[in-house]
Amino acid sequence: MIVIIQCRDQVGLVSAISGVLTKAGLNIISMDEYVDKAENRFFIRLNVEQPAGQNLLETELKPLLPQDAIITINPTPEKKIVVLVTKEYHCLADILVRNYFKTLGASVQAVVGNHAVLQDICERFGIPFHHISHEQESKQHFEEYVAETIQQYNPDFVVLAKFMRILSPAFVARFAMRLINIHHSFLPAFVGANPYRQAYERGVKLIGATAHFVTNDLDDGPIIAQQTIHVNHTFTAPDMVKAGREIETAVLAKALQLVLNDRVFVYKNKTVVFE
Amino acid sequence: MIVIIQCRDQVGLVSAISGVLTKAGLNIISMDEYVDKAENRFFIRLNVEQPAGQNLLETELKPLLPQDAIITINPTPEKKIVVLVTKEYHCLADILVRNYFKTLGASVQAVVGNHAVLQDICERFGIPFHHISHEQESKQHFEEYVAETIQQYNPDFVVLAKFMRILSPAFVARFAMRLINIHHSFLPAFVGANPYRQAYERGVKLIGATAHFVTNDLDDGPIIAQQTIHVNHTFTAPDMVKAGREIETAVLAKALQLVLNDRVFVYKNKTVVFE
Amino acid sequence: MIVIIQCRDQVGLVSAISGVLTKAGLNIISMDEYVDKAENRFFIRLNVEQPAGQNLLETELKPLLPQDAIITINPTPEKKIVVLVTKEYHCLADILVRNYFKTLGASVQAVVGNHAVLQDICERFGIPFHHISHEQESKQHFEEYVAETIQQYNPDFVVLAKFMRILSPAFVARFAMRLINIHHSFLPAFVGANPYRQAYERGVKLIGATAHFVTNDLDDGPIIAQQTIHVNHTFTAPDMVKAGREIETAVLAKALQLVLNDRVFVYKNKTVVFE
Amino acid sequence: MIVIIQCRDQVGLVSAISGVLTKAGLNIISMDEYVDKAENRFFIRLNVEQPAGQNLLETELKPLLPQDAIITINPTPEKKIVVLVTKEYHCLADILVRNYFKTLGASVQAVVGNHAVLQDICERFGIPFHHISHEQESKQHFEEYVAETIQQYNPDFVVLAKFMRILSPAFVARFAMRLINIHHSFLPAFVGANPYRQAYERGVKLIGATAHFVTNDLDDGPIIAQQTIHVNHTFTAPDMVKAGREIETAVLAKALQLVLNDRVFVYKNKTVVFE
Repeated sequence: MIVIIQCRDQVGLVSAISGVLTKAGLNIISMDEYVDKAENRFFIRLNVEQPAGQNLLETELKPLLPQDAIITINPTPEKKIVVLVTKEYHCLADILVRNYFKTLGASVQAVVGNHAVLQDICERFGIPFHHISHEQESKQHFEEYVAETIQQYNPDFVVLAKFMRILSPAFVARFAMRLINIHHSFLPAFVGANPYRQAYERGVKLIGATAHFVTNDLDDGPIIAQQTIHVNHTFTAPDMVKAGREIETAVLAKALQLVLNDRVFVYKNKTVVFE
Repeated sequence: MIVIIQCRDQVGLVSAISGVLTKAGLNIISMDEYVDKAENRFFIRLNVEQPAGQNLLETELKPLLPQDAIITINPTPEKKIVVLVTKEYHCLADILVRNYFKTLGASVQAVVGNHAVLQDICERFGIPFHHISHEQESKQHFEEYVAETIQQYNPDFVVLAKFMRILSPAFVARFAMRLINIHHSFLPAFVGANPYRQAYERGVKLIGATAHFVTNDLDDGPIIAQQTIHVNHTFTAPDMVKAGREIETAVLAKALQLVLNDRVFVYKNKTVVFE
Repeated sequence: MIVIIQCRDQVGLVSAISGVLTKAGLNIISMDEYVDKAENRFFIRLNVEQPAGQNLLETELKPLLPQDAIITINPTPEKKIVVLVTKEYHCLADILVRNYFKTLGASVQAVVGNHAVLQDICERFGIPFHHISHEQESKQHFEEYVAETIQQYNPDFVVLAKFMRILSPAFVARFAMRLINIHHSFLPAFVGANPYRQAYERGVKLIGATAHFVTNDLDDGPIIAQQTIHVNHTFTAPDMVKAGREIETAVLAKALQLVLNDRVFVYKNKTVVFE
Repeated sequence: MIVIIQCRDQVGLVSAISGVLTKAGLNIISMDEYVDKAENRFFIRLNVEQPAGQNLLETELKPLLPQDAIITINPTPEKKIVVLVTKEYHCLADILVRNYFKTLGASVQAVVGNHAVLQDICERFGIPFHHISHEQESKQHFEEYVAETIQQYNPDFVVLAKFMRILSPAFVARFAMRLINIHHSFLPAFVGANPYRQAYERGVKLIGATAHFVTNDLDDGPIIAQQTIHVNHTFTAPDMVKAGREIETAVLAKALQLVLNDRVFVYKNKTVVFE
């Protein structure tokens, strides 16, 4: 059983929480705790050996914690996700493979693409693919169709696996803190379109990838994971795109593994990640 | 105040320990906890805002813990170290620089060398250098002189910063779990002499460095930190030596930072490192 | 057009080779050259803008080079490979995905498994899967069947993508320098079976993966690529297996990309890799 | 002998250059060549076994190359450098140590500081230190004094080892392409002051360092080397500064090693680096 708590910090929180667990005869296998002193904010993740009733803990634990406490007990063991794509295959294929071999830590419900290129690979894995073109629709209608399609699957998270359309604030609000994006650069360098072209023009010696939650400010949501790899003068912009695919795939896979295991807290525009 | 405890695992340890601290009005700034399930062993490191009397905690805490508990409260804030060297300068110079600028987290008391090559650099930094040649002495006498020289400084740790003599079990026993060595390979690959030559002969694409506590089995003590870097076919054995210097320096620096901040537990032949 | 030459070193080789190309009006786009001084051995890889007849170059180039020169002009643009597997999916799935999206740089002809676990994934990608069990056969017969199955596809390379049977010298000889293996450790550390268990027992802080050509000495062939990742005390042996999968996949992918682009020379027990 | 050539690309350059060397009986030990197709620009670095007269090569080589060719033969084997600092010690100390042990590949002539904090460490290594305060001077006068002090040593390169003053275009022009700076971020992320504070506010999971030539556009000169390291939510801005020191030191050391070995070409706002 996983217990996750986020609240205002005060003296005695660890003692109070572990006391309740001990009293109930529950053994703590592992525990991650962090206090953000600047924000006076307390975060804890407990892996408890035995399951316990939601009620018991709510009744016992809640009165001991600050009123603003967000307690999540025993989050859905297998989350459901929907994946949004455009034409690039690498992140999607990685997710489909892990899903098929049951190592994703989630169940892929469906894939939505604004192009049909990736329909065949989805069908090979028996995953429903919805082709919703953005071309003959207003942005509002397009997003409406996408949102409705997503919602019929009621997913815990929506993964933008190289989905190349900018989403409106209305869409983002609808799936607040449930949208995970992979951005093809080391944010905040090279915000926006064509980051590899920008990286090439600047002559950088490293390129990166960033997985983050999506907020209204483009490419500016809370960062979950980042990675860089070395490049050199021989890399053209297309070479950087190709090299970038490898880390985009790896960073998104890592971010999903963290989020799907309830290891990521969001507070303000940052994350606390218990690896 | 840092509190470190290692003991047999049992239900309720976190609750008991944090309860004592809370009762005494002590605020936990950060806490690292780990249970080795295979060994049924519990490790905890607490950073507590206010200092507390050794007595109070001993009286309150000890009765609640298993009998085998090793409790260390408020370890020496600035540790003392003695450094052993031969001819290579890179690890020593890094330590001397950090010591001079007070960022080492320890105070270098003296340097002992079986060659005199590094005497001048020590003197430039005002650190006593003892030249004890191994050449006209029996191994036993040589080690005896070295041990006595070390002991007059009563150091918390003895750092083998590229000290190229193999130490006898008697010497090792005298400074048990206080000897930290930097080995110029990714252990357990290339145990023994000339690891870079071995790496060159094998045609590896990575070379490494390992910082570890010294035990009687050569190059086989508990590992504290390791790192690797890429090499390629153009590297001769001397090129690997040169490239290796950079990671040897970095890995030893990191290991010292961890050990000197009381972040490393040793149990059997492994370490638990709270980074 | 790619031109690859390996021979005894002597003065004037670059001049002779580039002279022939210039005289034929062929423009060198890029060129990698290396002399192993210890072995007095010359290696060159030229990427030439225009194609040229094999005959022309053989006639012009050969007389200018030492007699032992191995010249490969315009190697098969798309190589053929056969993949050998047991039960683990990660390396195979990565190869199948890249093959499907035509970014592998080779064409997967078939997969041979000593278990049937991975048959379904192969069929989803339309790749022939041959299940050849090792269980009711002598080793000799088993290998005979495997070799015959491979040979009917006449592949350029045979990729051991987590194939967990040790191959006999006879089998290795049959596919000399065409067998590429991924070993689940940073060789030469943890040679042999269960390297992650060994790594766990030793308490290492890094684990690795090695892609290499297979020779008769188990895990001792020329290394193509290696990589390591950090682990810590919280990793059980199964956790290391899981983390190891990610780098095994990445290292094998990289090694294949290098080999399939004619960037890897083998000489004695080492490789020269022009990245 | 090192021969370095940069010029407009055309067919036959490698053949022409290697032909001249072969004709003169000079053996090429290693050779790095690169053509920037987008810019139609040719770069070559040759390591030639025997030294040869500047005249001979100028006479023989120049007529065969495009008129815009920049040929550098046998560059000063040991370059001279002057180091500019403010208060932070880590990069300077690393340079002083390497200089003292003759592994820098250059000779440190003097250090200029706008604060006096680092005077003592320089004196311990017998290196002249010039304290030129920026406080009671106009920027113009301050830079005038600094430039004159530098010029009396006639250095090949001026290293800004955490020099925290912004230099005017006039100063930069005076030492064009001879000023090497270490910037405490992964450029182009976090341009300008307080990059670690910016990184902290943004909640990044990696921080970086960039060594680059200084041009008039602040933090925008040709990049020589970059590196990143992982950070997490527990890092305060000062923790990032501390962690950043390690990579700043490493990246500047690497950049110097490359530049001082004549491995870095500058063209437009990018570098070609032959590692």
